Amino acid sequence: MNTALLVSYDGTHLSGWQIQNNGPTVQGELERAVREAFGAEVRVTGSGRTDAGVHAAGQVCNFDLPEKIRIQPQRVADALNVFLPPAVRVLKSAAVSEEFDACRSAKKKTYRYSVYFSRRENPLLERYAARFAGSPDFARMGECARLLEGEHDFAAFSSTGSSVKTTVRTVYSAKPVPWADECGERVFGVHIDVCGNGFLYNMVRIMAGAILECGTGKLPVSAVEEALGGGKRDLLGKTMPAKGLTLRHVDYGFDLFGE
Amino acid sequence: MNTALLVSYDGTHLSGWQIQNNGPTVQGELERAVREAFGAEVRVTGSGRTDAGVHAAGQVCNFDLPEKIRIQPQRVADALNVFLPPAVRVLKSAAVSEEFDACRSAKKKTYRYSVYFSRRENPLLERYAARFAGSPDFARMGECARLLEGEHDFAAFSSTGSSVKTTVRTVYSAKPVPWADECGERVFGVHIDVCGNGFLYNMVRIMAGAILECGTGKLPVSAVEEALGGGKRDLLGKTMPAKGLTLRHVDYGFDLFGE
Repeated sequence: MNTALLVSYDGTHLSGWQIQNNGPTVQGELERAVREAFGAEVRVTGSGRTDAGVHAAGQVCNFDLPEKIRIQPQRVADALNVFLPPAVRVLKSAAVSEEFDACRSAKKKTYRYSVYFSRRENPLLERYAARFAGSPDFARMGECARLLEGEHDFAAFSSTGSSVKTTVRTVYSAKPVPWADECGERVFGVHIDVCGNGFLYNMVRIMAGAILECGTGKLPVSAVEEALGGGKRDLLGKTMPAKGLTLRHVDYGFDLFGE
Repeated sequence: MNTALLVSYDGTHLSGWQIQNNGPTVQGELERAVREAFGAEVRVTGSGRTDAGVHAAGQVCNFDLPEKIRIQPQRVADALNVFLPPAVRVLKSAAVSEEFDACRSAKKKTYRYSVYFSRRENPLLERYAARFAGSPDFARMGECARLLEGEHDFAAFSSTGSSVKTTVRTVYSAKPVPWADECGERVFGVHIDVCGNGFLYNMVRIMAGAILECGTGKLPVSAVEEALGGGKRDLLGKTMPAKGLTLRHVDYGFDLFGE
């Protein structure tokens, strides 16, 4: 039974999605949970990797649960949660068609990069957001974000070390959303919401850094234009830290899990 | 120099405000930081205690910094942060009048109790909120919350073990605020915001439990009325867990720290 999982994780103490020897990973924990819950050795395929320290509210993955296991598909979540560490939880599970592949079937991904503006660290914001000492202007951040929308060669928005066939990606939307208290009176940060058909290594974190530095005027909008026109990585600002990044949603063009 | 601090902490791994031998406390960490930064042995007075596991976005405390220490009052925060653990941070510091006492001068305190509604744990919400498996009705929660407003004998809303002169307190406001995504489309929890002139041991956590259980109909509103009329603790629901509670603001009738 091809089984899809909706997974949420707090990446703080995880070494990213992909299984490796240097610490706990989401893929490794899920494969271990399948082994312990069902006695099955499987490969869990994610919609894509996330780096060490990156969080997910709605990562999607799939694996082949042996037919001999008799369980309602939506109960697979509960069975796996028994064996998962608290930082990783399966929110939903469902049976999907044999052709479904969490990576190859993905149409769009939505990431959020969260930043709070403060000269001093705030312990209640530090875990899921990065701190930024400046006060970026929202209109200027929006101007930079709009430039990034569309189909572009994002080579300059990628850290070295990635080997991909093409660095062309389509960003469907990139928006700086004010992060405010309930009354909307005091804006204390920004959520940078980005949706695209795929992302290069560190691409969202570099985009977030460029949008913030355009917002303060440190980075001219012309540098972003130049970067998109085949320019180099060093035209842009720094790569923002992993902890501010959350994979929020993977879109497959249909509702995988029902409601 | 009587020095006031605005302090934020993530209570997850702290044994509460008050200094003790069984683990790190906020008061203990602050007194140690004053010792290490300034070589001074002081007593740090908080606006009140918070329990193990409870968070604070705006706790206030004060201490007497020896006159021989030459430092701008607003820089005391940076000096202490060098020696504090990441879970505790001084957001602001200021010189205050000799009469100021963070506990006795406090006029109002505002707490928030956060709850998310889900049958399964969500790793990204678990740290600062409690999970509730039901779907409480906001109108019924509001009805219960309104009953709690005003001056009442809150004896039934207190855990045994507290020794106080009077169990009469004034709750200025108690409001269940929908906790929704940005678009306000999907309400996934509730923030119970409570402001009062003082709170008994576990009072906010018991209030939150009663409001939630009124919301699901498990607890009749009449039981809350009876409890307020001098009834017993066992009329009400359970004490909600510490991690959902955050001390947000202490009001002294004037702006301690300027802007």
